[in-house]
Order: sequence, then C-alpha cells, then structure tokens
Amino acid sequence: MIDQTATALLEEGDPAADARAFRRALGQFSTGITVVTTRSDDRLYGMAANSFSAVSLDPPLVLWSIRKESRSAAAFLGSGHFGINVLADHQMELSALFGRPQPEQFDQVHWTASAHGDPLLDGVLAHFECVTETVVDGGDHHILVGRVQRFARYEGAPLLFTQGQYSVAEGHPDLALAAHLPATATGDRSEESLFTSLLQATDHHMSALFQNHRNRLGVTLATGRVLNRLSRGSCTRDVLEHDTFLGENAVDDALSALVEKDQVRRNQDGIWALTDDGRRVRSALRRSAERFTEQQLRGISHEDLATTERVLATLLGRGDSG
Amino acid sequence: MIDQTATALLEEGDPAADARAFRRALGQFSTGITVVTTRSDDRLYGMAANSFSAVSLDPPLVLWSIRKESRSAAAFLGSGHFGINVLADHQMELSALFGRPQPEQFDQVHWTASAHGDPLLDGVLAHFECVTETVVDGGDHHILVGRVQRFARYEGAPLLFTQGQYSVAEGHPDLALAAHLPATATGDRSEESLFTSLLQATDHHMSALFQNHRNRLGVTLATGRVLNRLSRGSCTRDVLEHDTFLGENAVDDALSALVEKDQVRRNQDGIWALTDDGRRVRSALRRSAERFTEQQLRGISHEDLATTERVLATLLGRGDSG
Repeated sequence: MIDQTATALLEEGDPAADARAFRRALGQFSTGITVVTTRSDDRLYGMAANSFSAVSLDPPLVLWSIRKESRSAAAFLGSGHFGINVLADHQMELSALFGRPQPEQFDQVHWTASAHGDPLLDGVLAHFECVTETVVDGGDHHILVGRVQRFARYEGAPLLFTQGQYSVAEGHPDLALAAHLPATATGDRSEESLFTSLLQATDHHMSALFQNHRNRLGVTLATGRVLNRLSRGSCTRDVLEHDTFLGENAVDDALSALVEKDQVRRNQDGIWALTDDGRRVRSALRRSAERFTEQQLRGISHEDLATTERVLATLLGRGDSG
Repeated sequence: MIDQTATALLEEGDPAADARAFRRALGQFSTGITVVTTRSDDRLYGMAANSFSAVSLDPPLVLWSIRKESRSAAAFLGSGHFGINVLADHQMELSALFGRPQPEQFDQVHWTASAHGDPLLDGVLAHFECVTETVVDGGDHHILVGRVQRFARYEGAPLLFTQGQYSVAEGHPDLALAAHLPATATGDRSEESLFTSLLQATDHHMSALFQNHRNRLGVTLATGRVLNRLSRGSCTRDVLEHDTFLGENAVDDALSALVEKDQVRRNQDGIWALTDDGRRVRSALRRSAERFTEQQLRGISHEDLATTERVLATLLGRGDSG
C-alpha cells in the first residue's frame, strides 16, 4: 500500500502575506547547488544558484533564475552565454565564495575558460556551456533559458541544499536493507555488505528520530544551530553562516525568529550574541538532547558503546587504499 | 583554502550527439521529487516531476516543465491551474504511481481538493496551489510558470533524486564532526551526540569509498543494481525499476548499456534476464566487493564487529518514544 502517513502541518497561508514562511515551504524541495558564470565586457561574473532545472533533451535546454536586483544581472543578460558548474559534496566553500558578490572571486579558484570565455570551475560534478536562448520575466527574477553546446560529467557525489542547510545524499535506506532480507537473499547478496547497509539504515533512522525530537521542542534545525554556535562565542553574521552550514536565507530567517523571541541580539559592531534568555533556552535544549540520547542508548552497555565507537572511528580513518 | 580536488572526467561532448550521456550529466544536479496535479474537464491528472524550481517571492512564482508529447500536457495547459506536492522520503511508491500514466491513480491515494479542484496529496512535505501565469516554449517541453495562491509546509524529510536513483539527505558530515573538535568544543557540545555524529560521518565516508571502488571497476550504481537484481531472478522492466530504486531513465540507460555489452537480454515476453556473460560479470563484481569490504574491515576483530552490528541493529529497532 502507498505510504501516506499523516505528518504535522507546520504552517500554511497566502505567500503574499508571509514571504518568509513561503520561502521555508519552497525549501522543502531539495536541490543541488550550481555556480553560474559568465564573461561580459572582459570581466568575470559568478554566482551560486540552486534554481537550475533541466528542460529539454532535443534541443538541449536548461534554465536558471537570477534576481532582477542582482548586481550581476545586467552582465548575465548582456553577455548572451553562461557556464553552469554543478558542485560536489566537499565544495561548500566554493558555494559560500559565490554566495554573495566579492572582489576577485576568480583569483581564489582554479578554472578554465569555455569557448565563450565563461569560467568552468575545477573539481565540480558537471559543466554545461550554454548560449542564452530566451529570457523570461519571472516576477522579481529573470528566468534564463540556455541552449547547451557542450557538457562534461565528472566522478563524485553532489552537494545538496535541503530544508535550508547543506547536506549530502545517502542511498535510500529501504533499498540497503531490502537487499539483505531473507526473502530476497536466496543465497545471494547485495553488492554492499550487510555491515554497510546496517550503518546506513541506522544513521538515517537516528537522524529522523532526532529531528522529530527537535520539532517537538519547537526548535528548527536552523535556530538550533544558531543557538549552538553563539553559545561558543559571539560572531558576525558571515561567520555564523559559515560555521552553521546554513544557507544565507536560513541564517537570516533563524536570526529574525530568535530576535523576536529575544534570544539573540546584535551589537553596534554587527556582532551577534546570545541574550540571557537565549543562554537559558540553549542550556535547556542541550539537556533535552542529552536525555534523548540517553533514552536512545539505554540498555546498551558502556563496553558495547565504547567498542562501537572505536570500530566506527577506525573505519572513518581508513582511506581509499582499502 | 577552497577544495577543488581534481576529479576524473567520465564523459563529455555535444549534447545533440549523445542525448543519453547528456541526460546523465544533467543527473549530476540533484532534485527533490514532486507530483503535479490538475483537474480539467472533471478529470484528474497527476504526474511525477523533478523539474520544479522556485522562481520569485514577490510575486510568488514557481515553475516546472512537461513533455509536449505527454498525454497530460493538454490537460495541464488547458485547466489554467495546478497543485504541487513535494514528496517525503518514504514516498517512493507515490512517485512510482505517478511516474507513468495509469488508470484510476487517484483511487489509490488519499487527497483533498484545492480551491480549483486540483488534488493535494496527503502525507507530503509541502503543497503549492497555483494558477498558470505563463507557458514558455522549452524545446521538447513546455515550461509552466505558476503563481502560488496558497502554500502549506509539513513535518518530514525529503525524497531525493540523485544521479539517477532515489536517495535521502543526511546532514553534512563535516558539520557533524566539526561540532566535536576540541578547538571549538570549549566545554560545550553539539546538540547531537558524538555517537550520532560519528555514525553519520562513518556512513558517508564508507559510501564514498565504495562508490570510488565501483567506479574503478567500470560499473555505475545503476548497472550494478540491475545486475544484482537480475541475479536474483528474471523480471519485467517495471519490476526492475521498482526493485532497484532507480528512476525510469536510469533503468533504461543501464539496460541499454548492459545490452551493448551482451550482459542482459530481453525475451519475447518482455522479461529481462542475465546472459552467461552477465552472470560471470556479476559474480566477479560480488567477489571484488567482498574483498573491498574485507580490506575495509581488516584488523577489526570478529567480536568487535559483532558487537557493533548488534548495537546498530538495536538502535535501528528503536522508535520515537525514546
């Protein structure tokens, strides 16, 4: 039977009435992350974008959107061509570098020029070299439809943007375990070991339980991370964005929500800090998380836990050579 | 420093010359999965789509693309409105149900009607109720830009489509471990336990190593899964798609690649089976995977491994209550 287990409604409404809540709802659709680049009037432009979408195979078309108010919009519309770079899982720094306009961004990275002179970044998962086919009005954005002239695909795993945070993909745990069920394992086995499948399924299961626990406390992943980071010391918004692995919008939304609850404040130098209330809430959350973990681990002996941690740490330290 | 570790080029070219390779390159950009629905002339239509993209906050706009040749295209263009359902991680069956035209799809699922009568499915992560703002020509697809009138956001984690397969998201392992580094953990700790973070990081690390191993053998995830599934018995293409958790295109591409290498064949009844060559290759892959796993687990005692597996299985069996 189709699984449609009811899930709790978190918020709903008219997007024109609450843009921030609408953005959170849009964030339920996960995406990869690209850096889109162009060369215009002998200058280079690049920006992180997750609005990329495959459109057509024949002719080969893709699209992405740029804010009309973006400082680079004129360059992207004017040049008539662009390059798409699909980021790999270890490239959060690259995403951050192109997340906002910064001088000399291209001096800090390795790239080669496409036939049109658009920067193609090294170490990414895919390149698409495009000429602009159409520009469509998209409200506060322009939608750029590009015709792909060249593509390249590289080895690696993707960087994801999921519910406002950077994340990585794991094979679906149902498949991992299904391959080891007695009913299907007629003397034969999955390609991956039972150990790996068990690791994957347990990881996903525990993450999901912890997320439910956090939701019940009225904390989002983003506000939880911001409180955690600030409990280690005050910092600027940019440092906060970097250290929490949250996207630009998620950090701003979390800060706004926490300011409304009087749990964080910004001083004159633009440094963010916890208020007394914020410190109290953060401590309560930590105690609750500890109780939750104790509950999950109950009945497992200290020795067994220590053994398990030692085995996991050993595996984590092993490289590609075997 | 920015991580741009060079990665192996897998393929490149002119998309007009090799549509299948181009599609594999497009698959490097990960997406969530939606089911888009409409009511037109008192009939209901629904189809799985991963071309969804957020466009604009003010006005609130989103877009997605439909194949011009799709049997539902006229209905979606004619009705002037549609509903977007963003699927949760446990809803692969829902994705499969709407992956291809089937009679009475909506009799098999729970839904409520939007103000326009478009089906909004139960148990999903988000709903967007839209009126069609513009339809743009997109080569072999129509691009539908919709204005969002209502949104709703629900608790849950997303179903992903990544490099041709269903997957789930995990928090970025760099963050999980960074929170526990001595330099930052000044007497304070991450919200999640060290145990959970270690589990997450080890899981991701081992998956990445296994993927590299598979690549070096010249096997893709998709061809590996198809060979595995067929080694358990012959089956139809639809069963293959279901059991391998691969998308429609990934299954077709894998079958074509394996037919070219004479490792699978289809009989008159449309049943797919391994050839003698396919059986040999599959056995060699399995032995190689076993050697790889042995290498990874070397030096860890049987007792420690057994303890670790027992602890993981215990955790996996625990529910939300603690």
